[in-house]
Amino acid sequence: MTFSSATESFDTGATPTGSNRWESKIHPGWDIGGNANGGYLLALAGRTMADAAERPDVTTITAHYLRPGPAGPITIDTDVVKAGRRFSTVQATMTGEKPILSMIGSFTDIEANPAERTVMLKDAPEWGDPEKVPRVEATDSFPPPIMAQVDLRIHPEDNFYNGPSGKPQMRGWVRLNDDEPWDTFSLLLASDVFPPTIFNADFGIGWVPTLELTVHVRNRPAPGWLRCEFTSRFVTGGFVEEDGLMWDCEGTLVAQSRQISLLPRLD
Amino acid sequence: MTFSSATESFDTGATPTGSNRWESKIHPGWDIGGNANGGYLLALAGRTMADAAERPDVTTITAHYLRPGPAGPITIDTDVVKAGRRFSTVQATMTGEKPILSMIGSFTDIEANPAERTVMLKDAPEWGDPEKVPRVEATDSFPPPIMAQVDLRIHPEDNFYNGPSGKPQMRGWVRLNDDEPWDTFSLLLASDVFPPTIFNADFGIGWVPTLELTVHVRNRPAPGWLRCEFTSRFVTGGFVEEDGLMWDCEGTLVAQSRQISLLPRLD
Repeated sequence: MTFSSATESFDTGATPTGSNRWESKIHPGWDIGGNANGGYLLALAGRTMADAAERPDVTTITAHYLRPGPAGPITIDTDVVKAGRRFSTVQATMTGEKPILSMIGSFTDIEANPAERTVMLKDAPEWGDPEKVPRVEATDSFPPPIMAQVDLRIHPEDNFYNGPSGKPQMRGWVRLNDDEPWDTFSLLLASDVFPPTIFNADFGIGWVPTLELTVHVRNRPAPGWLRCEFTSRFVTGGFVEEDGLMWDCEGTLVAQSRQISLLPRLD
Repeated sequence: MTFSSATESFDTGATPTGSNRWESKIHPGWDIGGNANGGYLLALAGRTMADAAERPDVTTITAHYLRPGPAGPITIDTDVVKAGRRFSTVQATMTGEKPILSMIGSFTDIEANPAERTVMLKDAPEWGDPEKVPRVEATDSFPPPIMAQVDLRIHPEDNFYNGPSGKPQMRGWVRLNDDEPWDTFSLLLASDVFPPTIFNADFGIGWVPTLELTVHVRNRPAPGWLRCEFTSRFVTGGFVEEDGLMWDCEGTLVAQSRQISLLPRLD
């Protein structure tokens, strides 16, 4: 998979060096204030873990964010804790100067296990035509540089750039540059590329540190616009959760996500 | 922490053996069809991981379920990947004859970081008096033996033992035997001790294998009845998610959970 853009591109494939260690790189341009986006890091690691598992798709992956990830060389250490018939499970650590992400994922071949039954208690949203909504433009500060790497459009009712809506939700559309097709790994990027939901609540705009992010992939995504909806319900204990739903352009639910974050740092 | 009961009790403390390995035991009586409940296993491992982290509370923990866990001796191998100021993060593996659970958790001291702001978009439910609802009685088969270890009462509208409601939800109350106080580890048991939501949908009753379970603890629980609500919205890709909310008897949201499971095996 290659994410290409006007300014940066990268191949999430990493180079095996033996002993379950892989060498890769956090590319510049995928950052927010100098540190790479958490979804970008998870896509990078998730692809490598799938390579270690020798499976083409991710089903569920969890990352704990230990430290910020500036651009530069990284290693990814993988440990296949079970290679099963349907799933293989991998523990991994991404390390720059120090450990950045600690992860577990289970990987599969989605095509080998076609689903027989579907029951959806919530339909894919119909929000109109994303082409009629302005793209979030990247800047050196805010909006962050990563907005040059994806074409992201915020639902007009949730566009906090025009003032917070008061509701902790963030809905919209996203596609990769040059309309590069999605796969189950780039969905991990999508799960964390929208601005935090609580930018639409009365909590101020600041860094919202993710402690943990889990993504469940349900189906392989079709190419084109993803429709994404992120909502929060509970600010308590010093944390806020953010629940994500991602549908492809055909209206298929492709992934669910949940992250737990600290409240914005306003210093 | 000791879960005591008419038939079995256990101390989730494990014995360190050096080299980050701990010895413990899956006790009989906490099982469903001979294999220990997934929440019980997570409580057992979570306490040990917190001991390794030297923190009194769990904030977020994820387990991937690799194999069933019958009663018997186990080891838990822990690796503290970061010991931070506020959180310590631990990878761990629980192993019987083979690996049973692969985990990551982040641990903290909840009292050291009092929360300043609370916003709740969903209130604690008021379902009446659990004492007026019959307790689920344990049997050797179904209801499973673990129902002797907890006092679990299903909301009358969701009590599939009287026939499925048609809605994939499971609400109710749970307390430990002898009204033993909850802590952040026994909440991990609570997150998986109710029957699966889809027993209330038209999917039949059978083993629902959990692939992955994540719990976010928000606050330390008060003693007494927990009010728990589990809901599912999406059966697709061969999986169903189950989202849990747990409130203590004072109406404080103490934990959120999400698991992804395969559909029931009806063989």
